[in-house]
Amino acid sequence: MSETFSQDDLVALVQKAFVASKTSEHNAWSVAEALVQAEVDGQKGHGLTRIASYTLQSNAGKVDGFAQPELLERRAGAALVDAAGGFAYPAFEIAIDHLETTAQYAGIASAAIAHSHHCGVLGWHVERLAKLGFLAIGLANSPAAMAPWGGKKRLFGTNPIAFAAPQKDGPPVVVDLALSRVARGKILTAAQKGDSIPDDWATDADGNVTTDATAALNGTLLPIGDAKGAALAFMVETMAVCLTGSNFASEASSFFDDQGGPPNVGQMLIAIDPSGFAGRDVFFDRFAVLASELETDPGARLPGTRRLALREAAARDGVQVDDEMAQSIRQLAEAA
Amino acid sequence: MSETFSQDDLVALVQKAFVASKTSEHNAWSVAEALVQAEVDGQKGHGLTRIASYTLQSNAGKVDGFAQPELLERRAGAALVDAAGGFAYPAFEIAIDHLETTAQYAGIASAAIAHSHHCGVLGWHVERLAKLGFLAIGLANSPAAMAPWGGKKRLFGTNPIAFAAPQKDGPPVVVDLALSRVARGKILTAAQKGDSIPDDWATDADGNVTTDATAALNGTLLPIGDAKGAALAFMVETMAVCLTGSNFASEASSFFDDQGGPPNVGQMLIAIDPSGFAGRDVFFDRFAVLASELETDPGARLPGTRRLALREAAARDGVQVDDEMAQSIRQLAEAA
Repeated sequence: MSETFSQDDLVALVQKAFVASKTSEHNAWSVAEALVQAEVDGQKGHGLTRIASYTLQSNAGKVDGFAQPELLERRAGAALVDAAGGFAYPAFEIAIDHLETTAQYAGIASAAIAHSHHCGVLGWHVERLAKLGFLAIGLANSPAAMAPWGGKKRLFGTNPIAFAAPQKDGPPVVVDLALSRVARGKILTAAQKGDSIPDDWATDADGNVTTDATAALNGTLLPIGDAKGAALAFMVETMAVCLTGSNFASEASSFFDDQGGPPNVGQMLIAIDPSGFAGRDVFFDRFAVLASELETDPGARLPGTRRLALREAAARDGVQVDDEMAQSIRQLAEAA
Repeated sequence: MSETFSQDDLVALVQKAFVASKTSEHNAWSVAEALVQAEVDGQKGHGLTRIASYTLQSNAGKVDGFAQPELLERRAGAALVDAAGGFAYPAFEIAIDHLETTAQYAGIASAAIAHSHHCGVLGWHVERLAKLGFLAIGLANSPAAMAPWGGKKRLFGTNPIAFAAPQKDGPPVVVDLALSRVARGKILTAAQKGDSIPDDWATDADGNVTTDATAALNGTLLPIGDAKGAALAFMVETMAVCLTGSNFASEASSFFDDQGGPPNVGQMLIAIDPSGFAGRDVFFDRFAVLASELETDPGARLPGTRRLALREAAARDGVQVDDEMAQSIRQLAEAA
């Protein structure tokens, strides 16, 4: 059985759960907005299921729910946002607000986020920049999951890359992908069921490719494109961590439990104003051609279109939350 | 049999071949420098083998050897370089010179190159920015080779992504990868030998995966990571083409023959100054940790290290050029 909420009501309830879990009103709202949006967008792994682990961490002080992120403007197009050991979402808010001004001025601008936490759906952050008229790129590191190519130690996270482009007559097109072939959750599910896994998903602890899901949980996830994906993960790790002075994947604590210090990961956003190059009209005209060519190929579709249909359904029919989840959020909210 | 050249002598000879093929002194030098560097770096597909097809194109006017690229500074951190239908390398020179100033000022800066031609080894361009102290990203589109995921029409090039990072005590680390699983050349070689190909390299003209190399030549190259690589190719196409008003992969003529108009492709460089974020010292310290962690994993190594050994060998022993190639370059050079 499930309960139906309006998106706004669900955000308000989730916000209460965080306010009751050592988190400021504003930060609680920021986190609630992001988790509910992920749930609506069909990204349940970044949605309501995170409430339990996030509140565990804020209650334990592993994440500082009262942190106030601080923006340090270092150059005309470059800023460092210190998330100060708090949730990532309030830091992203500040970064996006700042980029609106600096990307228009400088043509391209970046805000890098230091001492951060789980960024959720990276595509959502770049989508908000695209709604402001910018092309946007997002990079994030995450706790260790993948080895460098040829190696066997977990050194990189699954390190997502996201990209969004504005359209003249339509919503932003959004690309959002982790650099591992599959999410660790798929291997966990196979291990729980006793199923084997395909031979290109993961290695065991000795760095050998394995079809044993349980052995894979102690090994590494394999990158897309072999050495190529590992090289892209290296790029993301360098940008998100070295520019921000954050923790490498191999140093970061888990996003899921209350053990250890803060994960202290890093993220980077880049916003690009088409006016700084061949111009907005040229950009929109060319992009419309690309989108149209893509959609006239049967079987192909613009990346990220599924979320739009899910959002429409949620606006029309509300958000379904199963009873157990709804009850656990209410219990947290009423614990205040 | 082969002949040994110093790198400088080989550049001078190749320059002569271009000057004799409707190309200005400076442009000829710029192209010669790039092709010889690619040859030295073990990237022979972007090296001396290109001289024949490049000069065919300059002689036919498909590429304008006398073009003077023009830089249009549009914003504090953003510039458009019009390659004006000429070779790409002189346009990259101007872009890199300009980025040295603007990336320092703005913390991040970009130069996008319009109406361009084959960019050769994209990693070499970002490496030069890293030698100036910047992190650098390069994106380039190229004639159509891959379909959007689920589709069967060639819509994207193999669209390389390159990345370079400076080190405090060492040469830049360089990542350079095309987004197809394999280069088309590998399929061509298999077709010539009558060999079959693995079932994850390419599709036939109907969009079905094929192990028939000849059928694959009429189909599409498959992207790394399936839908993920196709999404990255979409990102590169959007950045390199829509921001510059250039030709999409599907509109671009071949880099190899003198048929049709200029390819008119686009490229984009982004340079990032660590001083604009957590600072140069933090960057270098963190990057040294990453590099060290990576190199202590047996079997793994920093991306792009092979080129450094090849450069040392060339500096010590000279560049080997087989007699047939040396003769054909001399014939071109003496045709003036």
